[in-house]
Amino acid sequence: MESAIPEHLQCPRTRHRRVGDDYTPPYPSFVARHAPTVNRVVMAYFGVQARGDSPAPAAGALHELAASFDAADGPGHWDRSRHADEAGFTNVICSAYWDDPARFQRWFAAQGQRWTREERSGLGTYVELVKPGVDRYETLFSAPDRAEGIATLAHGMSDMVLEHAYWGGARDRIPASQTDAMDPQGQPQVVRDGPLVSVRPHGNLCLIRSGQDWSDTEADERTLYQRDVEPVLRAGMDFLRDDGVKIGCYANRYVQVETRDGRPTEKSYGMSWWKSLAALERWAESHPTHVAIFGAAMKYLSTLGPAAKLKLYHEVTVARADDQLFEYLNCHARTGMQRAA
Amino acid sequence: MESAIPEHLQCPRTRHRRVGDDYTPPYPSFVARHAPTVNRVVMAYFGVQARGDSPAPAAGALHELAASFDAADGPGHWDRSRHADEAGFTNVICSAYWDDPARFQRWFAAQGQRWTREERSGLGTYVELVKPGVDRYETLFSAPDRAEGIATLAHGMSDMVLEHAYWGGARDRIPASQTDAMDPQGQPQVVRDGPLVSVRPHGNLCLIRSGQDWSDTEADERTLYQRDVEPVLRAGMDFLRDDGVKIGCYANRYVQVETRDGRPTEKSYGMSWWKSLAALERWAESHPTHVAIFGAAMKYLSTLGPAAKLKLYHEVTVARADDQLFEYLNCHARTGMQRAA
Repeated sequence: MESAIPEHLQCPRTRHRRVGDDYTPPYPSFVARHAPTVNRVVMAYFGVQARGDSPAPAAGALHELAASFDAADGPGHWDRSRHADEAGFTNVICSAYWDDPARFQRWFAAQGQRWTREERSGLGTYVELVKPGVDRYETLFSAPDRAEGIATLAHGMSDMVLEHAYWGGARDRIPASQTDAMDPQGQPQVVRDGPLVSVRPHGNLCLIRSGQDWSDTEADERTLYQRDVEPVLRAGMDFLRDDGVKIGCYANRYVQVETRDGRPTEKSYGMSWWKSLAALERWAESHPTHVAIFGAAMKYLSTLGPAAKLKLYHEVTVARADDQLFEYLNCHARTGMQRAA
Repeated sequence: MESAIPEHLQCPRTRHRRVGDDYTPPYPSFVARHAPTVNRVVMAYFGVQARGDSPAPAAGALHELAASFDAADGPGHWDRSRHADEAGFTNVICSAYWDDPARFQRWFAAQGQRWTREERSGLGTYVELVKPGVDRYETLFSAPDRAEGIATLAHGMSDMVLEHAYWGGARDRIPASQTDAMDPQGQPQVVRDGPLVSVRPHGNLCLIRSGQDWSDTEADERTLYQRDVEPVLRAGMDFLRDDGVKIGCYANRYVQVETRDGRPTEKSYGMSWWKSLAALERWAESHPTHVAIFGAAMKYLSTLGPAAKLKLYHEVTVARADDQLFEYLNCHARTGMQRAA
């Protein structure tokens, strides 16, 4: 058992962890460990949207984006997903990860910036990204053998960690929480420049990507997931998408992961932008929609015990104002962080 | 809106509250306010147990106890309850409250001590009590007009308080939490002296009394409580009673409140002894049995909204070792804190 905060990021505390040294989590979980030389990462979501059900209009743009990822200084990892949004548009998002901000900056200047600066007929494009220091995010995995998201760039996984399976665990895993309440600072601002909309958000905006992988489940477990868990998860995701703003969730997408050439996989994730980590904590621990998700997941996991093949993970970031970028080109007005203002 | 911690007990913090100043609870709750001259209280549970279903054998002892409460320096308030325990004994408990420890000491020396020092044929008797400073407990009420427990001795109720409706709220309402983690210290010890068993517990032992009053509910609300909430509550109480020790719950009783002459009322409460506030927090926020209770209560309250007539309250104490007393005379071996060792 070890702390989720790696030794080189531990510091004298001015704020306490929520659990004592005698705390023992009831089941194991693991966190991604970067090489100690990594001090900042980039998590970037490149989206394309088109009216209607068909992804065909976006094929050319997605091909071009994939080619740009292969160019010099491209991401260390990327994946692709799809979702229908509340305005009836099909969105495809490629989420891309770097663990060297200098490489990202070179790539972005040469390749990535184009994504929201060159108009494409019938398509909206957007980029939403954060560049947190390694003291500003945390990860959590139910199994140590299936990296997703930023963890794909990690040196490896931790041993079992102490700070999980209680409310407030995500905060306690973020190294900055040792000395910083990470309260939100300022107000989001929407800036329009012709077809380009930028959102300048506030300090300590919070991003979560929270995923599930049911590709290993079989027979009864698969039925249990699809019948008892997924619909409850979907209802919570729909609530956040449609009514989240009033509780501090600016935007939520519940996406199905697909292969790089667009075939469905048995993975999904929710990604959402929050006014603060505190707002995310309050929803997770007490809103009826997440209490229902938590209850369904608990029942599922306690029914199956260690035999469960479902894999769960998430990553939570609290980003400084300077470490965020939101740009929307020809997107409908409810896309992403545009609703924050 | 005001802090649950009264102004005269606020002090410079070395430990932070779990929520920020911008937190707004989603519904109102209230806490008991003592006169500022009150600096310590006594919460004492006097129990009598007899094998089988009938309370008749205990009638004489209970009559004597009630008479002693009327003697000089008796409690400011007391109530009576009944439960069948896991060994098949009927228990009647009178819980009594003082807000002046000197008066309690005089009364106890003259009257109360007898309860566990004079043997009664066919009966077991016990006393479990704590004498916390006012910085060492908290109360919470869903409505400001129905005091129970220690709140019956309060000067009045607060306005709506900030620190509630999130996990960790109880800790944040206890004034000592401003500077003290209240971690458990030492191990319980059972001391036998003929038929008398004393339990010397450890520092920062935790007591909760958590009650519900459905006497005002009518028609559909009553059905909803009895059908959808009470059975889930009972299952959680049974779990704590039978299997609580492994998660730090030394003893749990789910009791029905009755009138002073033994007629049933439409009130009940659970009272339990815990190794620590942390152990209680962990059960409440993540154990399947309490997640189910929380889910059922949330569904009930969100169905009824402000029209709900069900009244809920609790009081949670974290007691210093010197502020505790546990004595059992001719009681079966699983009674109360005897299971702690």
